[in-house]
Amino acid sequence: MEWKTRITEMFDCKYPILEGAYAGFGNWEFAAACAEAGVHGLITASTSRTPEQLSEDIRSCRKATSGSFGVNLSFGICPRIDEMLEVCIEEKVPVETAVYRPDSLAPRIKESGLKWIHKTARVKDSLHAEELGADAVIVVGVEGVGFKNPEQLPTFMNVTWGAPQFKVPFVAAGGIGDARGLLGALAMGADGIMMGTAFMATKECPTNEASKQDMVSSSPDNPRLRWRVMSHASPKDYAEVMRKRGNLPLNEWLPMLERVQPSAGDWEGDPNVPEPSRVGSLAVGAIKSVPTVKEFIDNMIREAEELAEKWEWINGR
Amino acid sequence: MEWKTRITEMFDCKYPILEGAYAGFGNWEFAAACAEAGVHGLITASTSRTPEQLSEDIRSCRKATSGSFGVNLSFGICPRIDEMLEVCIEEKVPVETAVYRPDSLAPRIKESGLKWIHKTARVKDSLHAEELGADAVIVVGVEGVGFKNPEQLPTFMNVTWGAPQFKVPFVAAGGIGDARGLLGALAMGADGIMMGTAFMATKECPTNEASKQDMVSSSPDNPRLRWRVMSHASPKDYAEVMRKRGNLPLNEWLPMLERVQPSAGDWEGDPNVPEPSRVGSLAVGAIKSVPTVKEFIDNMIREAEELAEKWEWINGR
Repeated sequence: MEWKTRITEMFDCKYPILEGAYAGFGNWEFAAACAEAGVHGLITASTSRTPEQLSEDIRSCRKATSGSFGVNLSFGICPRIDEMLEVCIEEKVPVETAVYRPDSLAPRIKESGLKWIHKTARVKDSLHAEELGADAVIVVGVEGVGFKNPEQLPTFMNVTWGAPQFKVPFVAAGGIGDARGLLGALAMGADGIMMGTAFMATKECPTNEASKQDMVSSSPDNPRLRWRVMSHASPKDYAEVMRKRGNLPLNEWLPMLERVQPSAGDWEGDPNVPEPSRVGSLAVGAIKSVPTVKEFIDNMIREAEELAEKWEWINGR
Repeated sequence: MEWKTRITEMFDCKYPILEGAYAGFGNWEFAAACAEAGVHGLITASTSRTPEQLSEDIRSCRKATSGSFGVNLSFGICPRIDEMLEVCIEEKVPVETAVYRPDSLAPRIKESGLKWIHKTARVKDSLHAEELGADAVIVVGVEGVGFKNPEQLPTFMNVTWGAPQFKVPFVAAGGIGDARGLLGALAMGADGIMMGTAFMATKECPTNEASKQDMVSSSPDNPRLRWRVMSHASPKDYAEVMRKRGNLPLNEWLPMLERVQPSAGDWEGDPNVPEPSRVGSLAVGAIKSVPTVKEFIDNMIREAEELAEKWEWINGR
């Protein structure tokens, strides 16, 4: 089966799947492993730390794989973001901007002609990025990890309601980690999926073995996990922090925003409920083992093709 | 395209779609309109109020349509539920039990040989119903309306993670209201979908025109709507009410549970955010007009077939 979508065409990758960004450990080796497996890999620029190192990392990645990869530039997290962008322009790698308004980088990206995908937590923010000229957008559902806000919708809503609003290719994210999620997102109208958590439970992911095993044994219906992932700050607390946004530098304001988010430890339910995985999104439900990235993707694609083969409702046409 | 799934086979209906239950207005005329449109209709027994009236309503519905329909029996809402079940047995109509543990009715339903589908808010509760002998199960995602609990997962998770755990046919619900939702749910492994909100914005629905127009103009990203639908009681408040469950009659305890749920009015964000629709789930995103039930279903199926026709990723096989 040929997994051709506007995303595979845009990035020239085999499958309509993107690796997520990982502040602190999204290094080039991991991106190369993803690219080798047929997905669009992603070097997280903040992991490279400096523009000089990013330049080296891009070159190392390019030597290691002929597959498709790009660089993540997350506002408020990535240091020296303008210089990081210049490195991407020089090296001609697609960029993924993320989290907050991409307005400041947009003109330079467009002028450079780089492929540009922007990731947000709300459909309206991604529509704004499309207006600024983004070539594709990603909207992360509340099932995912990172930048929660009290208006974030679940992945199912982002795809059914949100995706048709975009002219550019749309990538679904948030709790997606298996063949069914891939099929569902595409069937609802996404051009691809982005996975963060699911890739973390692979041999190549440069995190510790304990957190990988934690994810294997955790389940999305653990109420403490559900609480950590899906609960949001009270709209009042959130609004208070948002009011300070313009008056504080991003690196002071962002940690303040993070502090109003609930954590698993804030859960005041039954004390007998076991501790959930401390990392990962609701996609932990898809994690049963710790394969290599290639094994993970090969299995996922094989399962997706087997499932699609059995769809009486569509194959009967 | 033939929409054959285990659900269309079980209920002998044209499309793998079920009408939701509506306490107070889910009458036989509305169920008949749904059945006529090719979906499995549902008479809400609490709307008929008495077993005698339910018996009459089933007969009226049967005269009005040769389509497929059943009866909803919601624990804690439906009066004289055992007698209501006896009527269903006598009239040989499939039953949908809902909300709380179906243990008390299960032996009688099984003995009668009726087709039985049970609806819950959590995968684990539906697995319990399967053990009791349910022929099919429905799990409602947090995007839907009714019986929220702090462990409820989004629809996407219920289908990707939950559906494969069931041996019996699985029906996805919660925020589903259009062709994309139908395709997505089936692609992820559901055997069918249930829609509540989306059917409310049809001409035949016996509610007021104002609430239908409210849903047309509302949007799932209205933060007050999102708050009403998706926020849950604090696990502490919820646990306190749950502790009283065994010591109070259901009709005293259930309203207590409902009172700990947030409402749109509890939203303490920006006062300039417009009032959302007071009824309906996040499926309001799919509602653009108020067609007849038949128009609604015909359009939805036509759109689904047109979308599937364009799937390069699957048609290229």
